Amino acid sequence: MRMVSSSSAPGAYAYPLLIKQLLLRAMAVSGAQEIVSGPDFRMTYARFGERLGRLANALASRGVREGMRVGVMDWDTHRYLECFFAVPMMGAALHTINVRLSPAQVLYTINHGKPDIILVHRDFMPLIEEIRPGFERDVIIVPIGDGEGYETLIDAAAPGFDFPDFDENRMATLFYTTGTTGAPKGVSYSHRQLVLHTLGLVAGFGAESGDAGVNRNDVYMPLTPLFHVHGWGFPYAATMLGVRQVYPGRYAPDAILRLIAREGVTFSHCVPTILATLLDHPDCARTDLSRWKVIIGGSALPRGLQDRADAAGISLCAAYGMSETCPFLSVADLNGGTPDSRAHSGYPGPLVDMRVVTPDMRDAPRDGETTGEVAVRAPWLAQGYLDDDEASGALWKGGYLHTGDVGYLRADGSLQITDRLKDVIKTGGEWISSLSLETIVSTCPGVEEVAAIGRPDEKWGERPVLVVRCTEGADPDHVREAALSQIRAKVAVGELSKWAIPDAVLFREALPRTSVGKLDKKALRQILLDDADGTS
Amino acid sequence: MRMVSSSSAPGAYAYPLLIKQLLLRAMAVSGAQEIVSGPDFRMTYARFGERLGRLANALASRGVREGMRVGVMDWDTHRYLECFFAVPMMGAALHTINVRLSPAQVLYTINHGKPDIILVHRDFMPLIEEIRPGFERDVIIVPIGDGEGYETLIDAAAPGFDFPDFDENRMATLFYTTGTTGAPKGVSYSHRQLVLHTLGLVAGFGAESGDAGVNRNDVYMPLTPLFHVHGWGFPYAATMLGVRQVYPGRYAPDAILRLIAREGVTFSHCVPTILATLLDHPDCARTDLSRWKVIIGGSALPRGLQDRADAAGISLCAAYGMSETCPFLSVADLNGGTPDSRAHSGYPGPLVDMRVVTPDMRDAPRDGETTGEVAVRAPWLAQGYLDDDEASGALWKGGYLHTGDVGYLRADGSLQITDRLKDVIKTGGEWISSLSLETIVSTCPGVEEVAAIGRPDEKWGERPVLVVRCTEGADPDHVREAALSQIRAKVAVGELSKWAIPDAVLFREALPRTSVGKLDKKALRQILLDDADGTS
Repeated sequence: MRMVSSSSAPGAYAYPLLIKQLLLRAMAVSGAQEIVSGPDFRMTYARFGERLGRLANALASRGVREGMRVGVMDWDTHRYLECFFAVPMMGAALHTINVRLSPAQVLYTINHGKPDIILVHRDFMPLIEEIRPGFERDVIIVPIGDGEGYETLIDAAAPGFDFPDFDENRMATLFYTTGTTGAPKGVSYSHRQLVLHTLGLVAGFGAESGDAGVNRNDVYMPLTPLFHVHGWGFPYAATMLGVRQVYPGRYAPDAILRLIAREGVTFSHCVPTILATLLDHPDCARTDLSRWKVIIGGSALPRGLQDRADAAGISLCAAYGMSETCPFLSVADLNGGTPDSRAHSGYPGPLVDMRVVTPDMRDAPRDGETTGEVAVRAPWLAQGYLDDDEASGALWKGGYLHTGDVGYLRADGSLQITDRLKDVIKTGGEWISSLSLETIVSTCPGVEEVAAIGRPDEKWGERPVLVVRCTEGADPDHVREAALSQIRAKVAVGELSKWAIPDAVLFREALPRTSVGKLDKKALRQILLDDADGTS
Repeated sequence: MRMVSSSSAPGAYAYPLLIKQLLLRAMAVSGAQEIVSGPDFRMTYARFGERLGRLANALASRGVREGMRVGVMDWDTHRYLECFFAVPMMGAALHTINVRLSPAQVLYTINHGKPDIILVHRDFMPLIEEIRPGFERDVIIVPIGDGEGYETLIDAAAPGFDFPDFDENRMATLFYTTGTTGAPKGVSYSHRQLVLHTLGLVAGFGAESGDAGVNRNDVYMPLTPLFHVHGWGFPYAATMLGVRQVYPGRYAPDAILRLIAREGVTFSHCVPTILATLLDHPDCARTDLSRWKVIIGGSALPRGLQDRADAAGISLCAAYGMSETCPFLSVADLNGGTPDSRAHSGYPGPLVDMRVVTPDMRDAPRDGETTGEVAVRAPWLAQGYLDDDEASGALWKGGYLHTGDVGYLRADGSLQITDRLKDVIKTGGEWISSLSLETIVSTCPGVEEVAAIGRPDEKWGERPVLVVRCTEGADPDHVREAALSQIRAKVAVGELSKWAIPDAVLFREALPRTSVGKLDKKALRQILLDDADGTS
């Protein structure tokens, strides 16, 4: 058999996929376009490009070399965006530290992730001082602030830096995801994966007619923390497209609404909680949000929230992914006509091999109802957890990444997540989706927020229980009655099993959340166990 | 220094970039979408997917194995599209044979490219019979026709085929480009390059607002022969997006116009000549072309043609690339407001490193006038010519691919090609762009087509000469006068050097063209040399 391989000239450039190449078009074409950060800072892309060289020189002068790791603890600012590029472009790995974790967890991720140097915004210096005695190795701490420290560092450094070529499989980023059990787990992405994810994101969100999806004339503002899967990868995509970008800094609803109005923001992404916070703010009614497109991910899009967003003129669309998937896997119909279709977990992105499988890895039929675990392949999936062979092996059992999510595929290829595998309520022989109960109850008058969880039950294994946060002034008894009658109505028409009717509806002033804003069902289950009044 | 590389679980799928993955989304989501071929054939994507397995089994039963090469000689049909996928997906290389070359050249490309088997449409069987005695090795010839041969082959084969994984750098496609001198040169692309080109194409053409560029609801028809750089790569992009596709078969203006009308075609790409042929056809005036977007490449977009297309309601936009660049390098502003801006060679695509360089590889200033050779890097450039080290080395001199095109960059990052390096007219110390002369004269009344070439001149090196094909009934003397006075007017306002005024304007019934429809300046120069009446 003849070898078939492409001929390669001696001088031919093999073009490893590197993050620096995401800048090529933007630097050539969008030099005059602006990047805005908070109320007071703005720069052109041309200046941004120059600052990347300065940042690299500043880091190099503090000892950063290829192969090292650079941690960042900051709000969502232009500083963070600059680190997204300059650090990996130097050949170092960017460790985006989750500042919302408990001090003990932050310490754990630092000791496990082993950054050589950490840039720390002054707001997080008290935290660093608190945990510093627990550091297991020397870490250089570089305090940065608004204006002062970071800008001094940039100004003092030389502008030019020769960003080298290297293996595209080199680690570019590292962050930690808080699982359901045990310590946070390290997830890393290579240059190749991030470049491919960026192309996949633009190919998946860009080719829509009209103004749907992502366009070159959008104005982009992330509302997912940049430590969370690189702000879902959109900052890389926005930069490759050379669009106007707006960074909100520390999340404050009034400041975000002001920036949206002042800068004409048209595209954002966030978890439902963040959107709810903005809609709850009194300034919201005075802000024109009719040009604002928002991708909702991280959790299912509650119908009640969707209705409120629709009323405010926002174009909402759901997407699906997770920390281990970089995160883009699927997105609902961006031009979708109905609220239902825009809340679907969506159609797989380009190159995404999306399956719903039985425990023995056979495909569930695409019938819009048979559920199984979502298992995927794509060119940008985490290849394992850092230094955790057991969890890595479980993640990739059978050669597909196991999302831990339960869902079904419709005949048209769109996915519907029905629950987290671990959140499914197993009662008798039935699997009840906690999400479907939450969706139904979220639209009841008086319900601000709701969680459905399985309470251990000797006879049935588990029984569903609702935990509700009421809107101000709502009568809990009325709310309970409304919730149960909505569920009974769904049972009556056969949309829910009779086993789905909750044993109890409890009320709380606040529901516990994880560091990225999702309902913390682990904590909720603990509350139920600790709670003696756990009957309706 | 600590090693920095991503951890990889034992079962983790490393995801080599392979052409089969371009089908994943389409098969999951667009199963009911249609692919149309000529007046009589249509199939769904689901059927297309099934047929790929059948084609692979049919080829395997004829001895095709991984590492072999499969040639195709066909019109632009669904058969060709099926070969675009099934052949590389088997691990074989697809040799797209240029059927417009002379028989001697076709023979050369077959002997040089070494296909093991060739699928030949019955229209090209006489050509094959003519050159077969010259074959230097055994080649299996499989005759295919409309319906009969090919469909029998598909129907007789089993549907399922397990397309394997392999190295993403394996050769996927091979074709020949006719250079300015010497024999055709072999250009090949790997799976990785074609997948990246597809993502780059969709990212580069997709993220436009409104209906500009490429959208999911476009209806696609290629009008660049599929043997020419895989129809510029758009069939792969259209398939990845799962859009409706229409294949024209053998190019016949009336049939193409009927298909555009009947199938609602909205997106095509072609060289200027093909568009001119359609606009010349009497049925054109009766066809609604107001929803049709056409990308023009291969040659500069003549202003005269652009005006005619505008009048017909067509949205025209120029793009730039070449056989050795897969081909996408740049595209003009797809939402561009002015005819001028839509005729620019355009803005570099994502990940494209585009330079205009002096002979010693220094960057020309981006001033909108200083010309140099266009030199590029991108993840999808040919790494050399097949078995031609000397030409490969010249192509990649200095680590950048040398396009052989002369142009300049504007301050906004857009490129303007002014000429082929070899077509520049060098007169005295001046370089005159043949293209700028052609552009000016193309708008003169009575000019159907025009070429500007340098005629050897003892005193000046070269002197410009125009060769014109007149519109029917035009008076050559009037045309000559109009052409020269237009050029003199540009000289008077300083837009052209006085050396650009042609020494002669010649008239011909037809201008010679290359196999892909470009003006053949090599042949034109020969005509001038052979022509005794070469004075005005």
